[in-house]
Amino acid sequence: MSDTSLRHRRGKTTLVVRGPEGQPLPEQPVTVAQQRHAFGFGNIGFDFVDLVGGPRPEADGQPFGGTDQVDLERLGELWLNLFNTATLPFYWGSYEPRRGAPDTERLTKTARWLAERGVTVKGHPLVWHTVQPPWLLGVDLDEVERLQRARIRDLVGGFAGLIDTWDAINEAVIMPVFANGDNAITPLARARGRIHMVRMAFEEARAANPAATLLLNDFDLSSAYECLIEGVLEAGIRIDAIGLQTHMHQGYRGEEQMQQLLDRFARYGLPLHLTETTLVSGHLMPPEIVDLNDYQIPEWPSTPEGEARQADDIARHYRSLLAHPAVESINYWGLTDRGAWLGAPAGLVRADGSRKPSYDALEALIKGEWWLPPTTMRTDADGTVTVEGFLGDYTVSAGDRTARFTIDAADTAATIDLA
Amino acid sequence: MSDTSLRHRRGKTTLVVRGPEGQPLPEQPVTVAQQRHAFGFGNIGFDFVDLVGGPRPEADGQPFGGTDQVDLERLGELWLNLFNTATLPFYWGSYEPRRGAPDTERLTKTARWLAERGVTVKGHPLVWHTVQPPWLLGVDLDEVERLQRARIRDLVGGFAGLIDTWDAINEAVIMPVFANGDNAITPLARARGRIHMVRMAFEEARAANPAATLLLNDFDLSSAYECLIEGVLEAGIRIDAIGLQTHMHQGYRGEEQMQQLLDRFARYGLPLHLTETTLVSGHLMPPEIVDLNDYQIPEWPSTPEGEARQADDIARHYRSLLAHPAVESINYWGLTDRGAWLGAPAGLVRADGSRKPSYDALEALIKGEWWLPPTTMRTDADGTVTVEGFLGDYTVSAGDRTARFTIDAADTAATIDLA
Repeated sequence: MSDTSLRHRRGKTTLVVRGPEGQPLPEQPVTVAQQRHAFGFGNIGFDFVDLVGGPRPEADGQPFGGTDQVDLERLGELWLNLFNTATLPFYWGSYEPRRGAPDTERLTKTARWLAERGVTVKGHPLVWHTVQPPWLLGVDLDEVERLQRARIRDLVGGFAGLIDTWDAINEAVIMPVFANGDNAITPLARARGRIHMVRMAFEEARAANPAATLLLNDFDLSSAYECLIEGVLEAGIRIDAIGLQTHMHQGYRGEEQMQQLLDRFARYGLPLHLTETTLVSGHLMPPEIVDLNDYQIPEWPSTPEGEARQADDIARHYRSLLAHPAVESINYWGLTDRGAWLGAPAGLVRADGSRKPSYDALEALIKGEWWLPPTTMRTDADGTVTVEGFLGDYTVSAGDRTARFTIDAADTAATIDLA
Repeated sequence: MSDTSLRHRRGKTTLVVRGPEGQPLPEQPVTVAQQRHAFGFGNIGFDFVDLVGGPRPEADGQPFGGTDQVDLERLGELWLNLFNTATLPFYWGSYEPRRGAPDTERLTKTARWLAERGVTVKGHPLVWHTVQPPWLLGVDLDEVERLQRARIRDLVGGFAGLIDTWDAINEAVIMPVFANGDNAITPLARARGRIHMVRMAFEEARAANPAATLLLNDFDLSSAYECLIEGVLEAGIRIDAIGLQTHMHQGYRGEEQMQQLLDRFARYGLPLHLTETTLVSGHLMPPEIVDLNDYQIPEWPSTPEGEARQADDIARHYRSLLAHPAVESINYWGLTDRGAWLGAPAGLVRADGSRKPSYDALEALIKGEWWLPPTTMRTDADGTVTVEGFLGDYTVSAGDRTARFTIDAADTAATIDLA
């Protein structure tokens, strides 16, 4: 199904450029510039929570992310240069470490800060069995379900308009048999079944924000996930996108394996979101590790060879993913190495804030090969100009007058008033 | 959930033994003997098809099974001594190698021969992607589905009363992504989904024989199968038992792993059938083999050490399975080594018809420790006698008069007329 020409990512539009009185402007030099990709180039925005929202009320820290060598200005610049979609952390255990005292204010501030900069904000995750609040242990199943439902409604309803995309449920495949830590969600999933859990997540979230984009998200990309999706769809639960995690601490899987994977999940006719993708710039985790969490080492340095490999891998990975028409977004899991999951050198930026080659490689695609920089063109005798480029938002300007337009299909037309 | 005392497999019944005129027979010596286990001790009966039904019309042979050194009398004696449930082969490709010319007659003869000897006959499988008829390749999907549905109706309806247990669908987890041989079923499953395939199999079979016991059967015992089962149950498809394959050519999995497995699948409240279980009496297949079919060697001999290990394993395996209350039957996959799947020395009997230690070990359980041999007891002053034993069918006799009774619960009572 893939098409490496990426023609499905591109479009053109023919603009009739008009002046203040509505007259077409023939033979007029105009500057056209892309402003935003329609494709979701995402990253986690966990580091922003402390930097924008302020330090946590408690000292128990974020589970992942965090930075102390890169300030908000530098981090914001690096982040916003490449990404248009941010995933913010709503792990129950860190969001509401004490019952009834959720971290709403800091998350709201952070989401607003991102949204004001044109970033689409996504929340992660509404239901999961990991990073659970200790106060939920020992609560009886009916009450756990009631609290879980209330949490979904409160989050999705409370953040509606600011956050309209959610990982509704995370890792439902393993949920009822998860054995790597006591929690209240696994017994609920075991007693009531995966499909019950998925229905609970989607129905509550949908009711709280009918406009939300709601995802299933999983790391288990085996037939198990296919079977779960088929069961969920058969049960009449509407899901908006399939989330595929691809933490590749053990090495890039290669284009062929990724394409096969995408084809398998594209069968359901739903958009695919690569929700969590990671490539390390140090040594690879040994292949015999099954649960990545089991790999605990004191230090995992970024190396020159590792950084060269990561840069090469990331360009191949993004090219290959964009080539598949079902893929709608890619979310890289971390910008800097500080506080990265598992201590892995998975960032695109070193702990000191300097760019790795992978950052440059990604910039060369997202803001280079796949991007229309400010370009001067000339309208023809009818005042029209044809712009070709990647699907997304653009501006056209003449002198100090600027208007916005969108390329959202293979071939469209629009009239632009430079008022 | 397990109970190694096996008390859930045992029961007792208090019999009032009456004579020809209906009077209780006090202080009467009677002989009580078990005739049959309620538990399904099964094996494949593939070898009987040639021996009872006669040679195949074509020379293309059975896919599995087959014997030329053991005649019907010897094979029947060995088989019937241990087993009460036979699985017969209805692989589409071998059952109907030429379109419209199914092997009905030989299978009917064989099923009758077994049924006349008190054996419950099961058919395997109605829907599968392997051992497919070549004439089905290239047929369009709608027609494949029509033919598949007709096959299910014809088999299940035609054999109703003789065969009332079927593996309705085999290996549905891998079905849409199976890549180890072109066939017409994989594209159907890929286009229409696993749950569609399962529904097709169960609905057609149920309609053709409402009294049938219909199984899902799979070798994939990972979360994928759980997810499939949950989706199928959520879709409202009634399944009567969950079939679990356990071909252990790479070694016995051990009691602990087996119990965890059984607990995982017992959650659905359905009976568990160990449909295909194998333990070899030679060297073990290397652990790195993923698809057992990929292991092709010229010769795989049975060895004295292997036979000792197999005997030990089989006793542990059967004890552990019977200890779990959800398990309703165990079907061993092969009696003799001749023509065994993969050429493995998986039989309980050597190719020359001599018993291996595993046969003796199984006999010591099924017809020894778990069996009530003819036992003389004495009725009390009221003409009653209490019989304890494994759930199943029994006879009680005095002189030349014999009557049958059943122990089907922990504690029951019955009146027996020795007419």
